[in-house]
Amino acid sequence: MRVDATERDSNGDGVIGRLRGLFAPRSVALVGATDNSQWSVFTHANLRRYSPDVTVHLVHPHHQKVHGEPVHKSMSVIGESVDLAYVMVPTSAVIEVVEEIADVGTRNLVILTAGFEEAGPAGVEMATRLEKLSTSRDLTVLGPNGNGFINVAGGVAAYGLPIAPPLVGGPVGIVLQSGGLAAAVLSGAQVRGVGLSLMVSTGNEALISATDIMRYLIEDEDTKVVAAFLESIRHPEDFRDVAERALRAGKPIVALKAGRSEQGARTALAHTGALAGDDRMIDAAFRQLGVVRVNSLEELLATAGYLGYHPEVKGRRIAAVTPSGGACDLLADRAWSEGLELPEFPAATLTALTEFLPPFSNPHNPLDVTGYVVVDPRLSFEAMRIVAKEAAGNYDMILYATSFPRIAPKDLKPIVDRLDALASARQRIPVPLLLQTSVVSDLPAYAQELFAQRGLYLLNGIELGTRAIGHGARYHERRDRCLAAGSPVSISPAAPLQVPPGAEGVWTEHRARALLEAHGIPMAPAALATSAAEAAELAASYAQPVAMKIASDQVAHKSDIGGVRLEVEPAEAATAFSELAAALAEHRPGSLLAGVLVGPMRREGIELLVGVVTDPDWGKVLSVGLGGIWVEVLDDVSLRLLPVDEVDVAEMLAELRSAALLKGVRGSTPAYIDRLCQVIARIAGLAEGLGSALDTLEVNPLRVDGVDIEVLDALIVWKGGQL
Amino acid sequence: MRVDATERDSNGDGVIGRLRGLFAPRSVALVGATDNSQWSVFTHANLRRYSPDVTVHLVHPHHQKVHGEPVHKSMSVIGESVDLAYVMVPTSAVIEVVEEIADVGTRNLVILTAGFEEAGPAGVEMATRLEKLSTSRDLTVLGPNGNGFINVAGGVAAYGLPIAPPLVGGPVGIVLQSGGLAAAVLSGAQVRGVGLSLMVSTGNEALISATDIMRYLIEDEDTKVVAAFLESIRHPEDFRDVAERALRAGKPIVALKAGRSEQGARTALAHTGALAGDDRMIDAAFRQLGVVRVNSLEELLATAGYLGYHPEVKGRRIAAVTPSGGACDLLADRAWSEGLELPEFPAATLTALTEFLPPFSNPHNPLDVTGYVVVDPRLSFEAMRIVAKEAAGNYDMILYATSFPRIAPKDLKPIVDRLDALASARQRIPVPLLLQTSVVSDLPAYAQELFAQRGLYLLNGIELGTRAIGHGARYHERRDRCLAAGSPVSISPAAPLQVPPGAEGVWTEHRARALLEAHGIPMAPAALATSAAEAAELAASYAQPVAMKIASDQVAHKSDIGGVRLEVEPAEAATAFSELAAALAEHRPGSLLAGVLVGPMRREGIELLVGVVTDPDWGKVLSVGLGGIWVEVLDDVSLRLLPVDEVDVAEMLAELRSAALLKGVRGSTPAYIDRLCQVIARIAGLAEGLGSALDTLEVNPLRVDGVDIEVLDALIVWKGGQL
Repeated sequence: MRVDATERDSNGDGVIGRLRGLFAPRSVALVGATDNSQWSVFTHANLRRYSPDVTVHLVHPHHQKVHGEPVHKSMSVIGESVDLAYVMVPTSAVIEVVEEIADVGTRNLVILTAGFEEAGPAGVEMATRLEKLSTSRDLTVLGPNGNGFINVAGGVAAYGLPIAPPLVGGPVGIVLQSGGLAAAVLSGAQVRGVGLSLMVSTGNEALISATDIMRYLIEDEDTKVVAAFLESIRHPEDFRDVAERALRAGKPIVALKAGRSEQGARTALAHTGALAGDDRMIDAAFRQLGVVRVNSLEELLATAGYLGYHPEVKGRRIAAVTPSGGACDLLADRAWSEGLELPEFPAATLTALTEFLPPFSNPHNPLDVTGYVVVDPRLSFEAMRIVAKEAAGNYDMILYATSFPRIAPKDLKPIVDRLDALASARQRIPVPLLLQTSVVSDLPAYAQELFAQRGLYLLNGIELGTRAIGHGARYHERRDRCLAAGSPVSISPAAPLQVPPGAEGVWTEHRARALLEAHGIPMAPAALATSAAEAAELAASYAQPVAMKIASDQVAHKSDIGGVRLEVEPAEAATAFSELAAALAEHRPGSLLAGVLVGPMRREGIELLVGVVTDPDWGKVLSVGLGGIWVEVLDDVSLRLLPVDEVDVAEMLAELRSAALLKGVRGSTPAYIDRLCQVIARIAGLAEGLGSALDTLEVNPLRVDGVDIEVLDALIVWKGGQL
Repeated sequence: MRVDATERDSNGDGVIGRLRGLFAPRSVALVGATDNSQWSVFTHANLRRYSPDVTVHLVHPHHQKVHGEPVHKSMSVIGESVDLAYVMVPTSAVIEVVEEIADVGTRNLVILTAGFEEAGPAGVEMATRLEKLSTSRDLTVLGPNGNGFINVAGGVAAYGLPIAPPLVGGPVGIVLQSGGLAAAVLSGAQVRGVGLSLMVSTGNEALISATDIMRYLIEDEDTKVVAAFLESIRHPEDFRDVAERALRAGKPIVALKAGRSEQGARTALAHTGALAGDDRMIDAAFRQLGVVRVNSLEELLATAGYLGYHPEVKGRRIAAVTPSGGACDLLADRAWSEGLELPEFPAATLTALTEFLPPFSNPHNPLDVTGYVVVDPRLSFEAMRIVAKEAAGNYDMILYATSFPRIAPKDLKPIVDRLDALASARQRIPVPLLLQTSVVSDLPAYAQELFAQRGLYLLNGIELGTRAIGHGARYHERRDRCLAAGSPVSISPAAPLQVPPGAEGVWTEHRARALLEAHGIPMAPAALATSAAEAAELAASYAQPVAMKIASDQVAHKSDIGGVRLEVEPAEAATAFSELAAALAEHRPGSLLAGVLVGPMRREGIELLVGVVTDPDWGKVLSVGLGGIWVEVLDDVSLRLLPVDEVDVAEMLAELRSAALLKGVRGSTPAYIDRLCQVIARIAGLAEGLGSALDTLEVNPLRVDGVDIEVLDALIVWKGGQL
């Protein structure tokens, strides 16, 4: 739903209010109900089975009885008000049926029917009619070409694919831009014990988008974490707003975004070519916005489940208790790659464990209680209690490896007792207690309810479990940092700056210099000589070899036309001036020579590239990378949406694979990072402050030699300007 | 089992013959059987349930009846021959019991009892006694501290942990160096429909190692693929031999090797410090030996299952048929990151699909048959048949997305029909047919037998399924290449070279030059001047600035003491000689100046580092990386075991992140790669040919400037030499 700002800001009204109505009908009409369609069969069965308090009406113009129940010929003859129409009529009948639905006063619709936007020009035209109709009649429409939703918390399943029982409620709200995957994700959530609040499949998003659903889920009391499968982000600005709200609300968004394989590079840097593709942009935006990006459906479910059931876990320090040395090894490997820590047990714990465990054990963290657990099944649990005693302040969580028989034993009591003991221990021990299996497998049906009743959750497998914990740690760090900075996205935007006179087209170095300098960005000394004599005089004043560069509004890439001369001795400066003027005349006849920039030669230091471009979707984006061959050979850049502050910039620099260069190699001076971050943040701030008037600001290179940090060249492209 | 060469080569005898006997007993004695131990309960139950043709005897000195059966007081009173003793007596009784077992003529043992190598000095002493005893009495012992084995193909489960039914036979042989994980892996295999030939948990490997088991599995007819969980590779030489056999036999080894987090860098390069850690060494060795390295237990099972059930798939071209656009997107992403291809359908296929599918479909590869499959469940299958028609020559496999209800429907017939149709289609279509689900979940119990009966396998989830296909493609490429090269590990070893006289200690540049030159390795020109006058004369002969370097047996790192002078004008060469001699006297008093190497200055080109070191486990290892700051900042090196050929070297260069530098950046000359590979392979060949006499050979740098490739400096450390 293309919401306007008013709607966005008035939580409870606008899109959120509409969706609240959509998802909580007390009466539903299945329009187009027929025994001939499996969709109808499934939707009807779901409404009957999982929507106990909902009145269900079947509507079909010709059938007398469908799914064993009487049928209304049309919406108008139902004779009572209907909160939601679930539409599965043929494509050609949709418009007419929607009008009829609007006429009887029903405002909420799910349209399952396909054949709109995805189906060529005729479908697109139909989609436009549907959109107009919905807007003019003030309808809230989910779809078309969508399976609908399952409101688990509210007890409404208006959903067109089969739902295997049990349907367990829980903290995870799911939105998917794929109806087909909805079935797989629902099933995956069920078998992994991931309880759901609401699941929505958005279909073509003619009116309601995945972002709208996410906005709703963040406000929804039953939802603690949002899991999303996204094929495209239709309204990045909206997405950004939603992500900021989520961060503020402390409800993580976990997103699987397809499209990594799309190699289209759209965010091109002015000078060095295409550095950032869409996917990299999304990576950067998600990281910055605290959106947890995952790579598979399995990781989506495992991470969302973990964050939903364990919002209390913060930090990276794990104490692990396992019944196997092999599990310990794998856990250590995975913890390491996730940046998690396994601090050694304190002396008191080690002593207690040595006393308690069999003599052939070798206690350390992660703990292998040994296979003796087969003889004494309480070994793990007691070891965990010993570890818990000294846990406060030493670890952020205890990870407890466990498993359950796949086939329900005849006597469930031992398992129930174990779960009760764990649930009770969880209350008493001073740090969060996480349960984990070694290998992903379905939570057996008999165990699902036992877990749900006790609010227990099982991290499924070492691989996904550890990755989920890593995601959680990074999420909380990101959130804490954003909240501390006073705003979810790092920092408040910079105050708008006055756009300078003549801000149009392209400003090459000699024009850009003054603007940067005025905003406190350190520039390498250089002055404009307008004659050979002036050049010689300037060069003499530096009393050292100089760099000389053509200054012309028409030449953005000076070296391409031999417009740069390095290591010019002062005595040769006049000649060089004339040669540069000649080069311009030769290669760009008709170009105007504003002069020649003359400045002292710089030789030492590392060169960085700092660029701000305007992405059509995400707005201003900052790129930072090592310049020269580093960026070309390694494609080593870090991206951020603006605004950024110095802490962001420090993170960007640390992300570079070539980061070690800044620390000084082979005797070179380490960069003064604080100062460097300040300068880069200032460049970003200038670009941001200039607002929509600025298209691109590129500093290339920014020279860094210890504390000596200065811009050697800069370029500005104003809105509408062309390089 | 520390097998000697004779045993290794006499397949059928030696270790393989021993293990054949161990895994196929017709009678088993459970020694230490007691109702008080769950181990005893489980082992007995497994023997009874899964070993129908095996006679089981229970042995305990005090009990009359155990597990409801009569008990023998000792091995000697059983009164008939026993093929295998499964020992679970207390640690202190093990030695005595093993002697008794040997006395009655039983030669095969599984020892479950713990408390040996892993349990401190007393345990180690006990382990030594056990090993000696076993050797002297010619016993074949699995363990101690191991759970035993499940010979699914042979119908013997001598295994100490519970086994949930059904236990389905199949192509995957598993060996684990962790008893605890064995249970998780077994369960994982069962629920994913990965049928097993044999599973072995090796315990402490006092006598039989995981490598021995792998050797056995490669010979075992029922095993088509070997899955291994490894904590350590105890005998790398043996492992290498086994891996070569596996490659020759076409039985992939899929290995999960723990220990990535161990940061110990052991394989240190002479000059640039520690570049390769153990784990990187293992990565390189595995890749080279065609061992498929995986990162999680889930990936281990998915990959081994896929390779076991689909040995016929080769190549990277996939045609995919799915019922969901979302699945297509994810598949495309994953295929891309695995280097798999999804070529567009040929025109005939596109036309046929457009005619067949609903009008709102948009057929391309990967194919979304649309949600209309709910209405017409045969949509996917028929679309697959259409795609199959033009498959020959266009794709290497068809990937068919499917799913099965978690809960068995009342009427199984439709599912049986589907599976029959798929099994039959598999025979008829011209390329392999792979089945895949979207999300990992257990193969429902009702489906496991249906799949097994038809030889069908389900790739479980897009993520792991696609990764498995990628592993398979890389495995086959590696295997083909090795077989084509005439030897599993790339190439035949180089012929031994004559070790030069005086091959001891360290040879610095002036000595190393001659040896390299004699073996056809191009050296930058340089000659040894022994006086200032001679240096001046040499420099003058080059008629250009020269580089001058101290030549002294005592100085390996010349620049550390100011022993290198660059850009010396011929006129200054005599002075430079004296200064270099003075620098040596000052910084290394007592060192002998052999002279000063004088050669023409080199400025252009890229510098590579080429080093061969001797790893204590893996033998000679070649490292190749970009020199200078590249290797320091990016830690960007590629490793290979020797021998290598030029194709290997080309692969190594391609693996470097900085590989693009060799292609020429910013107008620099692209390296003549063929020549470069030849030179590096020759360096490696020299190091290999010198055999155990050589410890380290380092060329740093190797200068590459287009076709101009030459060694600028070299260093040799002979066996026992110290830098």
